[in-house]
Amino acid sequence: MSSYIAKSTRVRSTPFTNRIEEYGVQSYTVYNHMLLPASFKGLEEDYYHLKKNVQLWDVSVERQVQIKGPDASLLTQLMTCRDLSQAKDHVCYYAPITDDQGKILNDPLIMKVSSDTWWISISDTDVILYAKGLAIGQNLDVEITEPNVNPLAVQGPKSFELMKRIFGEEILNLKFFHFKKFNFEDHNFLIARSGWSKQGGFEIYVDDDQKGLELYDALYAKGKDLDVRPGCPNLIERIEGGLLSYGNDMNMNDTPLECGLDSFVSFNDEINYLGKSVLQKQKEKGVTRSLVGLKLQINEISLTKTLPVFYKGELIGDLRSACYSPQFQCCLGIAMINVSHHNFTEPLNLNINEQEITTEITSIPFTK
Amino acid sequence: MSSYIAKSTRVRSTPFTNRIEEYGVQSYTVYNHMLLPASFKGLEEDYYHLKKNVQLWDVSVERQVQIKGPDASLLTQLMTCRDLSQAKDHVCYYAPITDDQGKILNDPLIMKVSSDTWWISISDTDVILYAKGLAIGQNLDVEITEPNVNPLAVQGPKSFELMKRIFGEEILNLKFFHFKKFNFEDHNFLIARSGWSKQGGFEIYVDDDQKGLELYDALYAKGKDLDVRPGCPNLIERIEGGLLSYGNDMNMNDTPLECGLDSFVSFNDEINYLGKSVLQKQKEKGVTRSLVGLKLQINEISLTKTLPVFYKGELIGDLRSACYSPQFQCCLGIAMINVSHHNFTEPLNLNINEQEITTEITSIPFTK
Repeated sequence: MSSYIAKSTRVRSTPFTNRIEEYGVQSYTVYNHMLLPASFKGLEEDYYHLKKNVQLWDVSVERQVQIKGPDASLLTQLMTCRDLSQAKDHVCYYAPITDDQGKILNDPLIMKVSSDTWWISISDTDVILYAKGLAIGQNLDVEITEPNVNPLAVQGPKSFELMKRIFGEEILNLKFFHFKKFNFEDHNFLIARSGWSKQGGFEIYVDDDQKGLELYDALYAKGKDLDVRPGCPNLIERIEGGLLSYGNDMNMNDTPLECGLDSFVSFNDEINYLGKSVLQKQKEKGVTRSLVGLKLQINEISLTKTLPVFYKGELIGDLRSACYSPQFQCCLGIAMINVSHHNFTEPLNLNINEQEITTEITSIPFTK
Repeated sequence: MSSYIAKSTRVRSTPFTNRIEEYGVQSYTVYNHMLLPASFKGLEEDYYHLKKNVQLWDVSVERQVQIKGPDASLLTQLMTCRDLSQAKDHVCYYAPITDDQGKILNDPLIMKVSSDTWWISISDTDVILYAKGLAIGQNLDVEITEPNVNPLAVQGPKSFELMKRIFGEEILNLKFFHFKKFNFEDHNFLIARSGWSKQGGFEIYVDDDQKGLELYDALYAKGKDLDVRPGCPNLIERIEGGLLSYGNDMNMNDTPLECGLDSFVSFNDEINYLGKSVLQKQKEKGVTRSLVGLKLQINEISLTKTLPVFYKGELIGDLRSACYSPQFQCCLGIAMINVSHHNFTEPLNLNINEQEITTEITSIPFTK
């Protein structure tokens, strides 16, 4: 059943909301108390377009938690299990936020934007409240704010050509997960080569609404022959690409190790973060469950909540995201499954949603 | 322009989602990462029905942050400017959460559910992360969780009759903002006489999904002659009643004193909470701006973001919520306005959204 979204001040609009509504956004979700478009012409049509062309994504919902001051590095490191001690001021770090039990509270990109200032570019939880609580509790000398920064992503294989037309050849030298300031009409925009798709592209951290709109319009105008369109993170593309979504695939009851994020969990003696000793123990003993990919031999699935997964009547985990994949020609799922049931090489019959489904358990990202 | 809501695991369903979808929910909003119905048959029709009959509201989004342990009282008091030192275990306390600058982070009801356990029944921010940060930072001996509790509100003038049919005469003795356990089919439900309307009613804190559904169905069945319907917090009714909404009327840049919540701000020497000294100073000096009601002489308004308010070309504040009120036969607004412009007794011409509007500035709640 389809219902409308009710708008209000509480569910914030973005500087680009008017633009995407003119174009005709089909559906929204809400993310960090803000509108995030979820489809324009339908999931599949958006998907095919993204994989071939270039899209402008209003991802203002990727809010920045800015931590500034003498203790900014200390606090930022305390919150994440990733080693930031050598962090460079032109690199984005995917860095899970943990609590004292090693549970994952958010999975942001973290950027050191100057010597005493960090941006935590958050997924969908109020990291600002966690940071405030810790800073107050430990009496740290930091200022914690949410600046008016509204990221605009340019995604898709033709994003490189489009960005070159606006920012010049130099933008093509930007390495993956690096960021730098680039000029457009006398304004310097912080731009990263990043984005929540596997089709390539950039994220522009718009810190001036008016300049951002001018840039949006320029991208649109200069991209006509590239079939540029408004777009948004696409469920099918992100599952095919194995991009995890906090709140969907991961939540406050999971650890980064259970989510397969081992390479972002440091046990370096030099650093101190919350949950380190718990994660150390879990690493030594091994996790009892973890995220896996499922290839489900069905042609259609739509999830609005996690579904329990049974094998021969035994509950072995839960399915958290799923969609039909045109590329794999089956349904793909991301599920938290007991490790005792990971190593089947033959297809299984899983009972999901009271349906017996022939299933292959596989790694993430998916491979053919 | 109307857009659909995109559903996913991240935007959580509730135990009652299936029920309200069967009935035909028209629109949703998202609140605490969960679906909150926003209308069924349209704002006005829902409004008239609520004021005359009884509605079942799926307000599962009112999540509980449970704080339990030897330091639970200490932590809970630290977070709120309301004096909880004499809190009773059968009374709900409206208690703003503040940070060390006295800014308001949430405006929950707080309940002491047992000697060492508190429930913070939150509005739309992740108070659990603030509590975790503080507890970790101060090394407090508490356990902080979000229990599986999904409030179901029974609201409207006929709610008393309906609740009596299920729980017996005794429920009618429950005083406003008191709570107590009541039995239904061998399950004890914590029930408060409360709810986010001015039409009277109860909130049932459902801690067992299956029992909750049975109760839902029983309320529905026993209320047929009372024209019971699914409902939800109603924009018109709540503005007419002067119920403030966090995220709409108040946000992280305001203090409780600026929001007119003086009676919930304690300066009792015996208690210690975050932001107390800042609020003490603000109280002594007086606020420079505060929330007021506006009676706008227009027949229609719909807000999706705050609108700047001008008087004779000068920016004097911003309008945060507004609707047409059938009862007052004009539009009502809730706005943060500089106190220098509060005391006009004659109608003003305010410029809102590039429209000159004859306006009366008034107190909240509105009076005829």
